[in-house]
Amino acid sequence: MLKINENYLKLQASYLFSDIARRVADFQEKNPDREVIKLGIGDVTRALPRACVQAFHRAVDEMADDATFRGYGPEQGYEFLRQAIAEHDFQARGADISADEIFVSDGAKCDTGNIQELFSIDARVAIPDPVYPVYLDTNVMAGRTGPFVDGRYQGIVYLDSTRENNYVPALPDEPVDLIYLCFPNNPTGSTISREQLRTWVDFARDQKAVILFDAAYEAFIRDDSLPHSIFEIEGAREVAIEFRSFSKNAGFTGTRCAYTVVPRECAAWDSAGNRQPLHPLWNRRHCTKFNGVSYPVQRAAEAVYSEEGQAQVRELTDAYLRNAAHIAGAMRDLGYELVGGDNSPYIWIWGDRDSWEFFDLLLDRAGVVCTPGAGFGRCGQGYIRLSAFNSYDNVARAMERIREALA
Amino acid sequence: MLKINENYLKLQASYLFSDIARRVADFQEKNPDREVIKLGIGDVTRALPRACVQAFHRAVDEMADDATFRGYGPEQGYEFLRQAIAEHDFQARGADISADEIFVSDGAKCDTGNIQELFSIDARVAIPDPVYPVYLDTNVMAGRTGPFVDGRYQGIVYLDSTRENNYVPALPDEPVDLIYLCFPNNPTGSTISREQLRTWVDFARDQKAVILFDAAYEAFIRDDSLPHSIFEIEGAREVAIEFRSFSKNAGFTGTRCAYTVVPRECAAWDSAGNRQPLHPLWNRRHCTKFNGVSYPVQRAAEAVYSEEGQAQVRELTDAYLRNAAHIAGAMRDLGYELVGGDNSPYIWIWGDRDSWEFFDLLLDRAGVVCTPGAGFGRCGQGYIRLSAFNSYDNVARAMERIREALA
Repeated sequence: MLKINENYLKLQASYLFSDIARRVADFQEKNPDREVIKLGIGDVTRALPRACVQAFHRAVDEMADDATFRGYGPEQGYEFLRQAIAEHDFQARGADISADEIFVSDGAKCDTGNIQELFSIDARVAIPDPVYPVYLDTNVMAGRTGPFVDGRYQGIVYLDSTRENNYVPALPDEPVDLIYLCFPNNPTGSTISREQLRTWVDFARDQKAVILFDAAYEAFIRDDSLPHSIFEIEGAREVAIEFRSFSKNAGFTGTRCAYTVVPRECAAWDSAGNRQPLHPLWNRRHCTKFNGVSYPVQRAAEAVYSEEGQAQVRELTDAYLRNAAHIAGAMRDLGYELVGGDNSPYIWIWGDRDSWEFFDLLLDRAGVVCTPGAGFGRCGQGYIRLSAFNSYDNVARAMERIREALA
Repeated sequence: MLKINENYLKLQASYLFSDIARRVADFQEKNPDREVIKLGIGDVTRALPRACVQAFHRAVDEMADDATFRGYGPEQGYEFLRQAIAEHDFQARGADISADEIFVSDGAKCDTGNIQELFSIDARVAIPDPVYPVYLDTNVMAGRTGPFVDGRYQGIVYLDSTRENNYVPALPDEPVDLIYLCFPNNPTGSTISREQLRTWVDFARDQKAVILFDAAYEAFIRDDSLPHSIFEIEGAREVAIEFRSFSKNAGFTGTRCAYTVVPRECAAWDSAGNRQPLHPLWNRRHCTKFNGVSYPVQRAAEAVYSEEGQAQVRELTDAYLRNAAHIAGAMRDLGYELVGGDNSPYIWIWGDRDSWEFFDLLLDRAGVVCTPGAGFGRCGQGYIRLSAFNSYDNVARAMERIREALA
């Protein structure tokens, strides 16, 4: 008799964004004439950069001719893309990362979800609260937690991100092995300074822990003092893996391309006490369970690094940051306390009431979809997240409606 | 101190196809003027069907305009594609599968590798020998096996596919919970009859087991008596999951699209003895660790089901089958015993000597790359696999060279 993986039964009923989608669908069914503006899920709305579109078309044409057709590519990604990433995203910023440390994939969601497979089930895992649900749920599925009690999975070390610590968690006061960090943060939009990140790297080195650093939103950083990559911090190569994505800089949420950086020096240990580099383990996983990203998509991603591509990505992210500034300004004018929205597309707003209640209020009265903070963890209760991913026009109308509804 | 998942240390040194690639690279370095013809890895060589290319371009254009741009799609795939799959690949053949039972993904490798996550670590797993290495390796990584001893992982129930059973394994004589089957088979090219497949479905129902049926090569079936899908067999909906791919029918190995069918009735059990349907579990995994297939790729895949697309796919697979018939004929003329090559692009040849020795001999003397059967398992020792995925011209030259080398 085949038994299931019972860890799945510990998962809370549904995935946050599916929940929201269901509530919005219900609302639209009941209110067919009301237009809903979505500032909920962090999904981009503007067209792909022209440079990417042109490269995409050219590559599709290559696939249309036997002479230039490409079948299976390297699972880790084509050299042309890995090289462009290493040069532009790392070496140009003084971070010593080489092309063969880059693993191209179809999404940071997949990578941040799959990376935990490399580690022991007994690993003590530290996860921020509030948090992007994937880090937590994938560890639950793997069996690294106990049951869900009082809003938290037993066995996880939660890293509280609150107004008291300005949404950058303090180092845990107990031993941990695997640490998830995300900056600019999803959902709070908070950022981490070079000095703060250094304390985490030092802590990880001291604990023989590994930091899983999600930098999917780095393209929104405008403050030059902030690190774009954890590999700008000395000593990080031994203790950090970084996740990046083309979703939020170049609008690839529906096109699908991302990458993970596993430095050669980064390691964990086996039970005999031997140091085990993680690069060959991730490589083995990647080659066994993944078959590379679509070739035309990799060419489109490569175009992000062309001169035009860089200018177009800057234009895209600037536009979303303009939205973010407008949202933050409007909510501040209404008297709300908030963080984010300057080096991030997210604005994290203290609503001073139950998150889902605030969600329903904005949906019912303003026809605006936010993300209830409580969906990201216990520390998110009382907050909502607004996202800048929409047209300026929609954002302006949404904020006008919210002003009318809440004033 | 962070510990690794030590199951990875049980894996044999490297992935079969990486091994082959390395040997071929070595050979080419030592023999820079010799042209190598690859009939090894099962990778297509002919351009995408025109219908797919046109749909691909149109969808890229949609991504170039704010008004038609698409961000995150449904993780399970767009309705237009799921519907086309259900109608053409199943309902048209009398298999009762609906669109919401189809999960679109970026590869059958990923799906066949990831599906085991849904099941208990204690599941008794039956895996054919010889076999596509992914089924085995992903169960090793998950911890469902003991160490590798005498060419086999302890704890796995191997299903021997030999000349004695015409490369269709007999039912195991011990209890098993999870059964991998692949027909038309990779690597042997053998097929399974409706009656044989029925005995497996009945066995699974009797054992409360689940069959993971890999039908990635179904487009090569020309014998009308053979089943294309396990869901053509009565009772399979309760005990089977099927994997399909656009890689081998429409040449998507570098474009990336596949799908998995999880019928609503298919279930396993929890330790309290409750029936647990697998559809919601796979849905949860898919939504948590995957973010959908690239939208333009899904449009290209949809075009496979257009009238032109169907004709072009037929033309593509016919061409590869012509190659397969040529390979099989040539090897038979040389006196070799073989299977496959009629309803399959693979030809499985008894070499009567060590597989890697035969591999080296064909590479050195004929400049032809095959796949050594031993790389697929102990029962593959003494065999090689030749693949029909190349141009007819290359196949004809390869067989001529092999004739000269072996005659």
